[in-house]
Amino acid sequence: MKVCGYAANEPKSVLTQLSFDRREPHDHDVVIDIHYCGICHSDIHQVNSEWGGNGIYPMVPGHEITGIVSEVGTKVANYKKGDRVAVGCMVNSCRKCSPCKNGLEQYCIGGGPVLTYNDEEFINGRKTPTHGGYSNKIVVDENYVVSVPESLQLDRAAPLLCAGITLYSPLKHWKAGPGKRVAILGLGGLGHIGVKIAHALGAEVTVLSHSLKKQEDGKRLGADNFCVTSDPTTFESFKGYFDLIINTVSANIDLNNYLSMLALDGAMVVVGIPEKDASLSAPVLVTSRRSIAGSGIGGIRETQEMLDFCSTNNITCDIELIPIESVNDAYERVINSDVRYRFVIDIANSLKCEDN
Amino acid sequence: MKVCGYAANEPKSVLTQLSFDRREPHDHDVVIDIHYCGICHSDIHQVNSEWGGNGIYPMVPGHEITGIVSEVGTKVANYKKGDRVAVGCMVNSCRKCSPCKNGLEQYCIGGGPVLTYNDEEFINGRKTPTHGGYSNKIVVDENYVVSVPESLQLDRAAPLLCAGITLYSPLKHWKAGPGKRVAILGLGGLGHIGVKIAHALGAEVTVLSHSLKKQEDGKRLGADNFCVTSDPTTFESFKGYFDLIINTVSANIDLNNYLSMLALDGAMVVVGIPEKDASLSAPVLVTSRRSIAGSGIGGIRETQEMLDFCSTNNITCDIELIPIESVNDAYERVINSDVRYRFVIDIANSLKCEDN
Repeated sequence: MKVCGYAANEPKSVLTQLSFDRREPHDHDVVIDIHYCGICHSDIHQVNSEWGGNGIYPMVPGHEITGIVSEVGTKVANYKKGDRVAVGCMVNSCRKCSPCKNGLEQYCIGGGPVLTYNDEEFINGRKTPTHGGYSNKIVVDENYVVSVPESLQLDRAAPLLCAGITLYSPLKHWKAGPGKRVAILGLGGLGHIGVKIAHALGAEVTVLSHSLKKQEDGKRLGADNFCVTSDPTTFESFKGYFDLIINTVSANIDLNNYLSMLALDGAMVVVGIPEKDASLSAPVLVTSRRSIAGSGIGGIRETQEMLDFCSTNNITCDIELIPIESVNDAYERVINSDVRYRFVIDIANSLKCEDN
Repeated sequence: MKVCGYAANEPKSVLTQLSFDRREPHDHDVVIDIHYCGICHSDIHQVNSEWGGNGIYPMVPGHEITGIVSEVGTKVANYKKGDRVAVGCMVNSCRKCSPCKNGLEQYCIGGGPVLTYNDEEFINGRKTPTHGGYSNKIVVDENYVVSVPESLQLDRAAPLLCAGITLYSPLKHWKAGPGKRVAILGLGGLGHIGVKIAHALGAEVTVLSHSLKKQEDGKRLGADNFCVTSDPTTFESFKGYFDLIINTVSANIDLNNYLSMLALDGAMVVVGIPEKDASLSAPVLVTSRRSIAGSGIGGIRETQEMLDFCSTNNITCDIELIPIESVNDAYERVINSDVRYRFVIDIANSLKCEDN
């Protein structure tokens, strides 16, 4: 089917409107009228081919997608026209490997998950580029679609599909909850939703931020403490304090300093990808059996669980809603960390496709 | 009481015989006639003040101590004259902090454990240097003494007190056992006992070694696989394979290469301390929720559990028994990795003290 969206035609190019094809729905496919799509910093990294390898162009970014089902394939069991749905970072996976069978499709080892854009999937036997949510429609196998509870606004829910699940998954896996001291390192798009979720899970939440600028926000979002990392006494005061630090910072920081703030058996979980390798000191790990781990988004089942949890706990993202023609300006502002806390593109009200 | 031992009088000096005092036994103290003491690479690091800070000289090294109780304080409950006992890396701790109360004295946060040598303890209110096992006697609070089961030879058991527990503790904590794929990185003093213990725990054991030189040994010790890390295909063949890698290598290696061999949720546990920081890549952690952690020796209760486990499973160390006058030569050979797999000093038969 003919659709349209905003695409980068080459690395580092601005995004411009593009008409392109999506497949007609197969038996298990859901066609979604996209209403909203969040802007994730990784969209910018991928548009600019900054993560190694070559991007696939033209590239239509966007993996924080909410909308309404407009059509379903003949064998779709769980969705019908009019349903409020969402799509996140992946649209398929091998479904056969052990991670896939255990609901951890994001860690698929049968070739890896098919990402929502800047990736390829087989359609009618032909390798076809995937295109993301900066577009009016998307066609996705129902197994990679989740349902958005009525209580969640579609615009404020959109960033939950990447930022939300990226924080929810490690907070759950590393058992954030009552009696646990959790630090959220970095109060940006990822961090702000991390504070809300960790607080709702019952943990004591501390924001570690490079300045006091967002202190009021931190408290409003649910943080118990707000600490400034440009002040060296922070590291002394909180030495051996945290059970869990979720590191959302993709800038290169002195990890060892932060690791020293972990208690016995404490873990730092990295969810941002710095451009350079970090320097890691063994003694800081050995002296208190500390660990540093990584976590990537979450599985489909867990993404649904996260949306339900957010609905129960009245959690959505703090967003700035923009028309799609402002996307290039928004990219500049994301690069300058000038957004509280996520841009969401108002696709339905601003993207005009000639062919639809 | 007057005792004697071998001591370094200043950083990097050779060890020479020294007479010195130990305290008369207090109510809870056990006096041990030392029969054997293992040589750990960390003895050399400490003698040479290579771990930062200043060593305390004269320094009598040694923390892999086995012997026979010769005398006990009036309130000692668990040991009597003639008992086969051992002392490892620590001789006291605060006993009040949460780690101490949970049997994790090695992670004591009430000032840290008192190390067996190159540390200080309070004796009759006076800060007094501790001295280790390269000596004829040691006086230790019974709470920091463990019992050596009859079936374990005292000489071959000595290195269990550091090398053994250093491997046993993380293997147990990270649940090495049937169905788990465990790699032991580095087949030296630590690694060789790690292979034996991991095998006895029922795990599939792979040795990762820089050359094939020790292949026969690896199999004899209980390894199922022996892989050469100077061959790049090893990293491809075992990509995503291991649940647990125990890293005993204190040389600086490319951690990221090794981390890529971990399966989903796999962990690398560092038990050696490289001189320099390592370089750590975030994507290798994020893509399979991998982690890297540290572990240091084990608690007193766990050390006893380890000795009992070794007794049940007929595990002792492969050693080269030397008289104490060969200790300086042995140090050279340890530095050159020329020992299979641990030097043990035959204290009882070679150390002659004038005053005893």
